[in-house]
Amino acid sequence: MTIDDDARAHAEKKARIKDVKDKLYATKTKEKGLLVVHTGTGKGKSTAAWGLVMRTLGHGLKVGVVQFVKGRRDTGERRLLERFPDLVTIKVMGEGFTWETQDKARDVEAARAAWQEAKAMFADPSYHLVVLDELNIVLRYDYLEIAQVLADLAQRPHMQHVVATGRNAKPELIEAADLVTEMTLVKHPFREGVKGQFGIEF
Amino acid sequence: MTIDDDARAHAEKKARIKDVKDKLYATKTKEKGLLVVHTGTGKGKSTAAWGLVMRTLGHGLKVGVVQFVKGRRDTGERRLLERFPDLVTIKVMGEGFTWETQDKARDVEAARAAWQEAKAMFADPSYHLVVLDELNIVLRYDYLEIAQVLADLAQRPHMQHVVATGRNAKPELIEAADLVTEMTLVKHPFREGVKGQFGIEF
Repeated sequence: MTIDDDARAHAEKKARIKDVKDKLYATKTKEKGLLVVHTGTGKGKSTAAWGLVMRTLGHGLKVGVVQFVKGRRDTGERRLLERFPDLVTIKVMGEGFTWETQDKARDVEAARAAWQEAKAMFADPSYHLVVLDELNIVLRYDYLEIAQVLADLAQRPHMQHVVATGRNAKPELIEAADLVTEMTLVKHPFREGVKGQFGIEF
Repeated sequence: MTIDDDARAHAEKKARIKDVKDKLYATKTKEKGLLVVHTGTGKGKSTAAWGLVMRTLGHGLKVGVVQFVKGRRDTGERRLLERFPDLVTIKVMGEGFTWETQDKARDVEAARAAWQEAKAMFADPSYHLVVLDELNIVLRYDYLEIAQVLADLAQRPHMQHVVATGRNAKPELIEAADLVTEMTLVKHPFREGVKGQFGIEF
């Protein structure tokens, strides 16, 4: 095969792929607010939600964030969100990271209060995107009833996107979702004794 | 088991988990710039990179972005990045999305030029984070030599983080990386005829 043949074969293959993709995309026409789930034990679940937030803010659209697990406050994402006070509403579940508390009744109460904040966002169609950060954790511990959560999600405005994050997503949530990605850990710097790095981890 | 017993068991379990985590974190002390790879066929690879960008910008630190596959220009992430002209440098590989071109020699040339832009960022320690968006695609087609890419990455400043995205990450890149996440498709709205949604897909 000469170089010209190789170039021609390459061009033909690319043209075929483009043709298949164009035909596929042409069949995809529905518009709706998506229920997106980021789950799995790997990194990037919340980080990819922040990427969606960034995209939404770039378009000048409103974002609501409910954090069901309160981590450190001085994160980069938090600081960036605070630069868009007209577009961003953040609510943090009251009782802190669940590994740090040892009071189940208090956690349940806090989860319910946080869910009320989420429902207030579902009731307001001006929110283009609602992030339910670490919702899967409170669902896993049954701090919220999955049936009620799904019923409330189904009542949200037709074009409102929701992204729910956290490992161990419930099968019922995956079933209801439009787009589900599992983040799988392939390699983690902890193995080498490297700690969570500023600007990456927080 | 009474309610009190249940609450006590819950508290004890949480306390044990917290103890294990605290001990684990205490052993993680090294600081270094991470080579992060987001790969797999699922969504969220570039989106999670934008989340890291958001975090970095929130801290007021500089970000360099090299996009090896030029998509649409009017994305939300692009618009947001343009709001931080003092902190963000974006370089886009000249010849567009590779499925759209049918000229391998031109693609190789464009990939090499884009890599020079990446190298210029590696040479500047003021960049806290460098995003090599869709690098894996040009590596997969051997538009760039993996050995040279790894050598150049190894020369970057000690505390500079790099995130490389794209499906089909080369084993050599995974081997060299500190943190690798595979995004796995669990469910995609294409199945239901739903198109890429504004604010989610772009």
